[in-house]
Amino acid sequence: MKISPCIVGLGYVGLPLFLRLSKNYSTIGFDINKSRIKELKAQIDLNSEYNKKELILKNNSNFTYNTKDIQRCNFFIITVPTPVYKNKKPDLRPLIIATKIISKYIKKNDIVFYESTVYPGVTEEVCAKIIEKVSKLKSQQDFFIGYSPERINPGDSKHQVENINKIVAFKKVPYEIKNKIINVYKKISKKIILSNSIKESETSKVIENIQRDINIAFVNEIFIICQKLKLNFTNIIKLASTKWNFLRFSPGLVGGHCLPVDPYYLYALAKKNKIHAKFMLAGRRVNNEMENFVYKSIIKKINFFNCRKVLIAGATYKANVADVRNSLALNIYKRLKKNKNFNTYCYDPMINNKYIKKYKILNNLNYKKNFDLIVPLVPHTKLLKNLNLYKNSNTIFFDIFDFYK
Amino acid sequence: MKISPCIVGLGYVGLPLFLRLSKNYSTIGFDINKSRIKELKAQIDLNSEYNKKELILKNNSNFTYNTKDIQRCNFFIITVPTPVYKNKKPDLRPLIIATKIISKYIKKNDIVFYESTVYPGVTEEVCAKIIEKVSKLKSQQDFFIGYSPERINPGDSKHQVENINKIVAFKKVPYEIKNKIINVYKKISKKIILSNSIKESETSKVIENIQRDINIAFVNEIFIICQKLKLNFTNIIKLASTKWNFLRFSPGLVGGHCLPVDPYYLYALAKKNKIHAKFMLAGRRVNNEMENFVYKSIIKKINFFNCRKVLIAGATYKANVADVRNSLALNIYKRLKKNKNFNTYCYDPMINNKYIKKYKILNNLNYKKNFDLIVPLVPHTKLLKNLNLYKNSNTIFFDIFDFYK
Repeated sequence: MKISPCIVGLGYVGLPLFLRLSKNYSTIGFDINKSRIKELKAQIDLNSEYNKKELILKNNSNFTYNTKDIQRCNFFIITVPTPVYKNKKPDLRPLIIATKIISKYIKKNDIVFYESTVYPGVTEEVCAKIIEKVSKLKSQQDFFIGYSPERINPGDSKHQVENINKIVAFKKVPYEIKNKIINVYKKISKKIILSNSIKESETSKVIENIQRDINIAFVNEIFIICQKLKLNFTNIIKLASTKWNFLRFSPGLVGGHCLPVDPYYLYALAKKNKIHAKFMLAGRRVNNEMENFVYKSIIKKINFFNCRKVLIAGATYKANVADVRNSLALNIYKRLKKNKNFNTYCYDPMINNKYIKKYKILNNLNYKKNFDLIVPLVPHTKLLKNLNLYKNSNTIFFDIFDFYK
Repeated sequence: MKISPCIVGLGYVGLPLFLRLSKNYSTIGFDINKSRIKELKAQIDLNSEYNKKELILKNNSNFTYNTKDIQRCNFFIITVPTPVYKNKKPDLRPLIIATKIISKYIKKNDIVFYESTVYPGVTEEVCAKIIEKVSKLKSQQDFFIGYSPERINPGDSKHQVENINKIVAFKKVPYEIKNKIINVYKKISKKIILSNSIKESETSKVIENIQRDINIAFVNEIFIICQKLKLNFTNIIKLASTKWNFLRFSPGLVGGHCLPVDPYYLYALAKKNKIHAKFMLAGRRVNNEMENFVYKSIIKKINFFNCRKVLIAGATYKANVADVRNSLALNIYKRLKKNKNFNTYCYDPMINNKYIKKYKILNNLNYKKNFDLIVPLVPHTKLLKNLNLYKNSNTIFFDIFDFYK
């Protein structure tokens, strides 16, 4: 039978998969977010990852928010977000909702893959169970599930889904099912790595992100110490980097939908099993503290120089992305804006258009504005280049993270 | 004036420096440990880093514990240990004692370098002050101080002092002093990296080690979770390692005189300055917990299989070294040995001879001993090779860290 893929969730993870697969298959791109679907149909990606031309639909593929359109599909890939609640417990609702939607349409021999970051066991013990319950079919007998951790790195043009190593995990399945899975994933990534353990693959993904969070937390702590003791952090890192095994991470404002969230996923599972595993959360505290540290440092500068017009440069959660989810730079800007002793502006040439009005962001610089203080917080390539214009002016340049080193 | 070097402290750090310099200069190797001096004079290195031939004295150099012998020296390099007290506060006594010893002999234009790992400020604010006080000379005017962080990695034949990047830090000094420093350090390492900040160099060194401790702590925590949830840790790390930026660290028993100590140094300075910097200590807790986790895992095996003869393989603090300082493997062995329900033996082919009697260690295997259980804890190359003999026997092999993966 012909493979008919459906991507559920068209964000940073789903859209690239849809675009890869629609080159070869008539693919359905499904999202419950109607405005996202409308934009994509109009060839607009507000995440600024794809241009109009790249969003031209191929092979009779389609974007839809109508569940009926997924009826004809037989290979589902779920790429919905896995956030945490305010109390930091895993919020599996998007995953459960997506699973329930497709469950109504699952037929015999259908294949369902998950790409969302989860703790080990979610795919088999939560998702597959829901499909069984709704569809009345049996997992690994009537339908087949798998896990392929997403390794999307927004803003990174070098590591795109087509050229990275992509883990594809599934248990023993009939020969023709295995063939289908491999065929589909080979269309997505050139290098696929097969695993027969879904749980091991789930774990591998979540630890990749926690390791990064921990390492950034470490340099952030050292950065704070250096700032407070007036030691030159940049020089210190340069010296340490002359050792063969020193790992060069940059301090900064850790935001987004992965690093600030994933440690809580694995921690939740450990806690449920009465395993004391608090180390993985230690990085969270440091990385969150950075917001306050940077905010206070800016306030000090403002007071010291008696600034009236302050420009925060960068509001998204990291360099060269449009996304503001969990952005500490945006938080800092919002906190400063509340202070009526000075005027705070924010410039971000990368930010998703829909936030420009909402947060009063400048997406280009009005050179007539004479800022007293400019603080770059997010090192978008374009932003750093454009700010150069101010460097020889009277504006005080507070490059706290030494982006211009 | 002729350069006459003196190395103060002839352990893992000082001995290699002495051997490098004595190829070119008449060098004094000083240590207050009389038995170490006697052994070295007899061309014996109980650390097993150098063989008899390598310890032949050259250029009228000498080993001594007599302070009078250092009188003729004018270039001092201090390589004494920097441990912590039981309450984990930095114990600067060895550094202070060494400094006081040389201070009596410091003359005008002498040079003093420190290689011990410290927190930023110790060289200039503690050591130089002592020299000034004792010698009545002025630092940076009469005598000159510097810092060159040691990067000795015991058991690692690839990264030897002669072929690594060696940081050499000193402030502005007269031309001829600068020349002397560069000449001496070029004899030690082929690649020297000059820095004009002693504090930055002190900081760079201590963060290198803390970063390593943190990263091993992270994999240790994941390792414990995997063991408790019966997930295959080795497979998970293999999968994660297929990501371009995953850092492959191995879980294990972290001991020795650096990683278990250095985080407390930087932490002490931060605390003194009222900086909350607890993240760097978080790794310590996890890495120390490993002793208990491994101990309990072994006890479980012993009880389950009702073992009577247990062999712990490896007692030093890490692979291919003779040193047992802060060795968790040795602690585990000692704890097991106290239990009279079974007999515990320990095999270590690398351990410093002086511990063989003290801890009743086997340095070769008596194949007639039919052990019920063998637990490799330290992956000495020789040890892993020799244990292979048991792999097809009836002995239960509990390779907890998957050394034979």
